[in-house]
Amino acid sequence: MKSPLITLLTDFGLRDHYVAAMKGVILGISPGARIVDISHQVAPYSIAEAAYTLSQAWRCFPKGTTHIAVVDPGVGSSRRAIAVDAEGHRFITPDNGLPSLILDSVRGYKVREITASRYFRQPVSNTFHGRDIFAPVAAHLANGLVFSKLGEALSDPVIGTFAKPIPNGVNKWLGTILHIDSFGNIITNFSESEFVRMEHKPFKLGIHKGVIKHFSRSYASSVPGQLFALWGSSGYLEVSINQSNAAFALGAVTGSAVSLRI
Amino acid sequence: MKSPLITLLTDFGLRDHYVAAMKGVILGISPGARIVDISHQVAPYSIAEAAYTLSQAWRCFPKGTTHIAVVDPGVGSSRRAIAVDAEGHRFITPDNGLPSLILDSVRGYKVREITASRYFRQPVSNTFHGRDIFAPVAAHLANGLVFSKLGEALSDPVIGTFAKPIPNGVNKWLGTILHIDSFGNIITNFSESEFVRMEHKPFKLGIHKGVIKHFSRSYASSVPGQLFALWGSSGYLEVSINQSNAAFALGAVTGSAVSLRI
Amino acid sequence: MKSPLITLLTDFGLRDHYVAAMKGVILGISPGARIVDISHQVAPYSIAEAAYTLSQAWRCFPKGTTHIAVVDPGVGSSRRAIAVDAEGHRFITPDNGLPSLILDSVRGYKVREITASRYFRQPVSNTFHGRDIFAPVAAHLANGLVFSKLGEALSDPVIGTFAKPIPNGVNKWLGTILHIDSFGNIITNFSESEFVRMEHKPFKLGIHKGVIKHFSRSYASSVPGQLFALWGSSGYLEVSINQSNAAFALGAVTGSAVSLRI
Repeated sequence: MKSPLITLLTDFGLRDHYVAAMKGVILGISPGARIVDISHQVAPYSIAEAAYTLSQAWRCFPKGTTHIAVVDPGVGSSRRAIAVDAEGHRFITPDNGLPSLILDSVRGYKVREITASRYFRQPVSNTFHGRDIFAPVAAHLANGLVFSKLGEALSDPVIGTFAKPIPNGVNKWLGTILHIDSFGNIITNFSESEFVRMEHKPFKLGIHKGVIKHFSRSYASSVPGQLFALWGSSGYLEVSINQSNAAFALGAVTGSAVSLRI
Repeated sequence: MKSPLITLLTDFGLRDHYVAAMKGVILGISPGARIVDISHQVAPYSIAEAAYTLSQAWRCFPKGTTHIAVVDPGVGSSRRAIAVDAEGHRFITPDNGLPSLILDSVRGYKVREITASRYFRQPVSNTFHGRDIFAPVAAHLANGLVFSKLGEALSDPVIGTFAKPIPNGVNKWLGTILHIDSFGNIITNFSESEFVRMEHKPFKLGIHKGVIKHFSRSYASSVPGQLFALWGSSGYLEVSINQSNAAFALGAVTGSAVSLRI
Repeated sequence: MKSPLITLLTDFGLRDHYVAAMKGVILGISPGARIVDISHQVAPYSIAEAAYTLSQAWRCFPKGTTHIAVVDPGVGSSRRAIAVDAEGHRFITPDNGLPSLILDSVRGYKVREITASRYFRQPVSNTFHGRDIFAPVAAHLANGLVFSKLGEALSDPVIGTFAKPIPNGVNKWLGTILHIDSFGNIITNFSESEFVRMEHKPFKLGIHKGVIKHFSRSYASSVPGQLFALWGSSGYLEVSINQSNAAFALGAVTGSAVSLRI
């Protein structure tokens, strides 16, 4: 019996039977699959947060892992389903920008539109493609199905507007809050690799009703009670307050805007 | 090493050690068991909601799966423990109506009272039969224990009052709210198979402080802000508001009454 | 492929990617590992609650299990990491008192400081030793790594102040609330084995704004609405109200003080 590794990321929550339905379908097709939950508590419909969470988790898994990610406000519409092959990992998602942060960080990738309906669970519902399309396709891939059999190659996967900050003036950008962690730290989409220079220059970072002007190298070196920016272990610019909840202090929510002026 | 499949459904929540205790006991008896959580966040003591959740999940799992479901307000009393064999699946539960919706939908089934204490974890506590009776019995069954060795055949398993709406007048019924999903849709126990005719007739559906008179074929075809009934993917009559939370609007809670007049 | 059993206990919650990152690292090193969650919803930073939860769960697992427990307010400081070997189980934790209640209940144990960095995930971050130290070390141990190769033997593991009540006068003690369960029962650190005599004597148990003077042998034998103490299935003195929430009634929280006078 093969033991492929499959991860799951959704906004379905843990109360309903939806996640279990996907697992049952997977194990019916690939009985030896090891299934790991990444999260099922992504903010409902937040593609940006799902993209962030997936981008932080996937490299911890061994090559050969198949990742299913379903945050899918467009289910039942004409949005495409896609499979991505990158650095030995596979990603099975709606084509709504969910893999954006991964595509931006890998050395190369292949994308296929998923149209081979013989690998779907029949009948396919209009409301639950996680169970009827994404889970069975991932299980077949994990079993060894050749990637190119899923459907035609696709060169224009949707890239989320949250993938990179957008320039809007001289030394000005408009970014997005990707995630607020359980400590209230605000993770933005300003990456250390592109914005590392701001550390050494005066800047103004605007989030909802607050402006952050201080940069710190670590949590410990900051003044208690003062808002500050730092490069988080995520590789992105984070906003924190030492020993307090920055998101609460600023009224910040996932998906909302961040302005930067250097 | 065998790899039987065992699912778990409880109202224990995920904070305490209870679910892990059950898994440890299972893996001590059946080291190769693959364990899948259906939900541990059933509303406390809600047998109706547990019955609904189990009825929606079990068919997604392959034949041969053993399902443990423990919502057990009667633990420590004289309520029986039962095992059900239906369509190649086994269900291990208190005899309190939890498998009602499954028994109603399968072509046939066998039930045994669970009395063979040599398969229990000793000593059996008064408060935690999930760990001491249901988990070890399921693990032995999954290992190949012959079903009839659990105890005597039983012909009168408890059927929940929530299993079917109760007639209370000419073209009038009293039903139950089985579940409220994470989007606020209200799932009732009026099944499409028995009540499909109401779709084409005038009706009044009463839930707490509201009355629903509109039927819709899909979410999209409804008027925003208007309460409507539809046949959900669950196979039951659901009450929704397009782009809003029907349960909140009506003050509806799981287990409460629904009146129907056609 | 080996199938070692590894459990996880943290205060990371289930929303973020942290738990999945640990699982990915484990499965990269020990592909056949079976991973069981004990809880990831320990009250943030509550070493006492983590210690209690672990102490209640570990004996349900078979010998040979490796338990990772990470509630780690001191991560990044000079606190040590330790591995404990007791009754055929291994425990991998920060040296902050987390295994205290286990050390107190077993017949003997060995402790090693974890310093063998060749088993760590490199580079080791300052903020996430769960992923970089505890998970990979546990996976290597589960794969068969000899215990003594982790580092030097250690004879003075930190014992939490919550491990035992502290005498503070004649027949007076100061204890700690270890846990509040999902029914609102308050679990203290007064163990049945040491304090069994109080059952037969007048006593005053003080928790926040309340005083409990009644003892009951079971939930059922108590008067509805009256606060009472009993020996719980945990082996500790618990405070309950029949059919109500004792923690809410008393304003009790995990980690706070309990005074006892017999």
